[in-house]
Amino acid sequence: MAYKAPRGTVDILPAQSGKWQELEQLLRTICANYNVKEMRTPIFEHTELFNRAVGDTTDVVSKEMYTFEDKKGRSMTLRPEGTAGIVRAYVENKLYGLPEKLQKIYYMGPMFRYERPQNGRQRQFHQFGVEMLGVESPYVDVECMLMAVTVVEALGLKNIQLHINSLGDQESRDAYREALQNHFQPVLNELCHDCQVRYEKNPLRILDCKVDKDHPMMKTAPQTIDYLSESARAHFDKVCALLDDLEIDYVVDPNLVRGLDYYSHTVFEIISDDPKLGAGSTVGGGGRYNGLVEELGGPQTPGVGFAFGMERLMIALGDEPQEDEGLDVYIMPLGSEAKDLAMQIITMLRANGFTCDMDQCDRGLKGQFKSADRYRAHFSMIIGEEEVKKEVVNMKCNHSKEQVEVPLENIVEFIENHYEGDHDHE
Amino acid sequence: MAYKAPRGTVDILPAQSGKWQELEQLLRTICANYNVKEMRTPIFEHTELFNRAVGDTTDVVSKEMYTFEDKKGRSMTLRPEGTAGIVRAYVENKLYGLPEKLQKIYYMGPMFRYERPQNGRQRQFHQFGVEMLGVESPYVDVECMLMAVTVVEALGLKNIQLHINSLGDQESRDAYREALQNHFQPVLNELCHDCQVRYEKNPLRILDCKVDKDHPMMKTAPQTIDYLSESARAHFDKVCALLDDLEIDYVVDPNLVRGLDYYSHTVFEIISDDPKLGAGSTVGGGGRYNGLVEELGGPQTPGVGFAFGMERLMIALGDEPQEDEGLDVYIMPLGSEAKDLAMQIITMLRANGFTCDMDQCDRGLKGQFKSADRYRAHFSMIIGEEEVKKEVVNMKCNHSKEQVEVPLENIVEFIENHYEGDHDHE
Repeated sequence: MAYKAPRGTVDILPAQSGKWQELEQLLRTICANYNVKEMRTPIFEHTELFNRAVGDTTDVVSKEMYTFEDKKGRSMTLRPEGTAGIVRAYVENKLYGLPEKLQKIYYMGPMFRYERPQNGRQRQFHQFGVEMLGVESPYVDVECMLMAVTVVEALGLKNIQLHINSLGDQESRDAYREALQNHFQPVLNELCHDCQVRYEKNPLRILDCKVDKDHPMMKTAPQTIDYLSESARAHFDKVCALLDDLEIDYVVDPNLVRGLDYYSHTVFEIISDDPKLGAGSTVGGGGRYNGLVEELGGPQTPGVGFAFGMERLMIALGDEPQEDEGLDVYIMPLGSEAKDLAMQIITMLRANGFTCDMDQCDRGLKGQFKSADRYRAHFSMIIGEEEVKKEVVNMKCNHSKEQVEVPLENIVEFIENHYEGDHDHE
Repeated sequence: MAYKAPRGTVDILPAQSGKWQELEQLLRTICANYNVKEMRTPIFEHTELFNRAVGDTTDVVSKEMYTFEDKKGRSMTLRPEGTAGIVRAYVENKLYGLPEKLQKIYYMGPMFRYERPQNGRQRQFHQFGVEMLGVESPYVDVECMLMAVTVVEALGLKNIQLHINSLGDQESRDAYREALQNHFQPVLNELCHDCQVRYEKNPLRILDCKVDKDHPMMKTAPQTIDYLSESARAHFDKVCALLDDLEIDYVVDPNLVRGLDYYSHTVFEIISDDPKLGAGSTVGGGGRYNGLVEELGGPQTPGVGFAFGMERLMIALGDEPQEDEGLDVYIMPLGSEAKDLAMQIITMLRANGFTCDMDQCDRGLKGQFKSADRYRAHFSMIIGEEEVKKEVVNMKCNHSKEQVEVPLENIVEFIENHYEGDHDHE
């Protein structure tokens, strides 16, 4: 019987993993530039965490979670996003008590949502995200946005737009909630069942309903920006002023509300018209979530963050095959004595830090040279019966095509000298 | 309400993640030396895959799996080990058809077993593993063992022993199975219920029963090594001869059978008496699995591999705090104009590839100098009202303690020149 990967999941094969490593390394370098440190939280969490943090009227929680009972009957869920786990860990491990009040944290790894696998959306997908916890300052909102912009610029994406909006503080949100209810009340019975529930529990979520998105009252719905309290307005104005100062282009987009419940104040998205992704593609986004730490049992602590889908970033990175360095040495033994000698040599070379491989299939020279090519070996080391007898190897430089006989005891020295004189080798 | 990580899982906090990155980097370097490439498979697989590959009479499958139904009612399981997924992906993606017959693959990531969380065993743990598929050669068995030994040596573990054994081919295993049944038949009713099932289905698994491990017949059980077929014996003899040639110490341990069903021929474990781990600790192990590819629907293809628990490797790496490089610059603004200027400068410095941070808490100099210390900043850049007016910054080198006024337009040049003359900086 043949087995398949579960629907909506993919294998990252050896030929592709180098590209993923390249993306991750690029992201880690940007994190180092911004002094952001990695945190890793479990793959699954208590289901209640996501109900509470992400919100049980969101599509993510109500429709898309992988939820199961463990052997003790506790409800667990594969994490559908990264922020809830990071904030849970921040509270549980009391990071709010550390001497550095501003904790800047990144994560990258698999997330899980049970969606129809389409448009390249996978059920196991990967996110890179950043959370900055502990300081309620528009400067930190802007630092987040700058970092998000830096990521997409580093990937070479063209035609990037930063969209921003503000959902305001609790006072603003209460006023806006009432305005939304007043707006939709006359047409409530025309909306889908989910929206009727949302109307009572969380009318903001009506705005990202996929069923009712073409209802005429959607276009005329009130906008968060008109219901900001004075202090929320001041926060947002400072964000805009800082972006102006830094000459970062942005668009205030009053329809931007984000699909998760924990946001307050600033929300933002990076939209790209790069042909690689298609016009108007959202590459990533985030926002401020000043209530979330308290919601999860911690002291009142502000936070702001963003996340990118890494599959999107991989598309942005492009599909030129990743150029790794190629092997230092490919060893080509002919015959069983040569093979035993090759095992000795390869072990010694690897211990000296060289990247090496050797034929294990007892092929002739032709087949072995093909492997040396495929692995882009700097040297091919040929060992035949003659060489075994003379205690030498035949070193062929695949760049200069020079071929030299080298005594066994001089191999390491020979390679090192060769590399020293070779400006092509990094 | 306060939320907790699920029992048996842990958070890897920002202060610890650098060590994990260090371990992963070390493993990736060894993989490059051995020309082994990464593969990434999904976190969950169809349950049937593990029943078939790992074996449904093993403890792992029968007692320890996180199994759940997805929304379509398909049974899924969080992967309890890495080999089954890799081999499934190898078959599904037809890697056996690639021009390189020997495919050398590594993986690292989370695995899941529902065990009592004790002795540092976690329910979400992490494994690093290597699989070499396509060639049935004792040389490849030895390459695997060498690589495993290289890993523990690179971690600085002391008193390492390589234990090896052979389970033989199908013919050997059939003969051994019969010998085991004959041995345990007279005492069958003294064994636990599980063992009575194993007796019929898979008597080898009786040997790793935790319940019956002190039964007197365990000590006198027949040993696999005495039931090897001629060709299995020859394979094992060549493995031993190669290890002798390479002067790798090893112990033939006839009691070594490994707890997973897919093994055949060579099995091995790395045991360490290093005080960090405790006497006689198994750090990792593996073996050959010549039937597994076919079992999962592929063509008859030999394989051999090993895995290490990464939590163990982390203990081996030691708990000295990881010394990252420290920030290039910590910016210390005093007052709101200085802060706006700091945002400009930090953005410019990061774009130039420097690692930087700045105060976001509006603290005085004393508090800010503490942060510069904690982040081991090479430079502190002080910006007060005076500096804003004069369009300069005050650069303090925290190594030489020198302090210099630098015009805004010369900052990058100043830092670069300073580093060029400084042999301490990498």
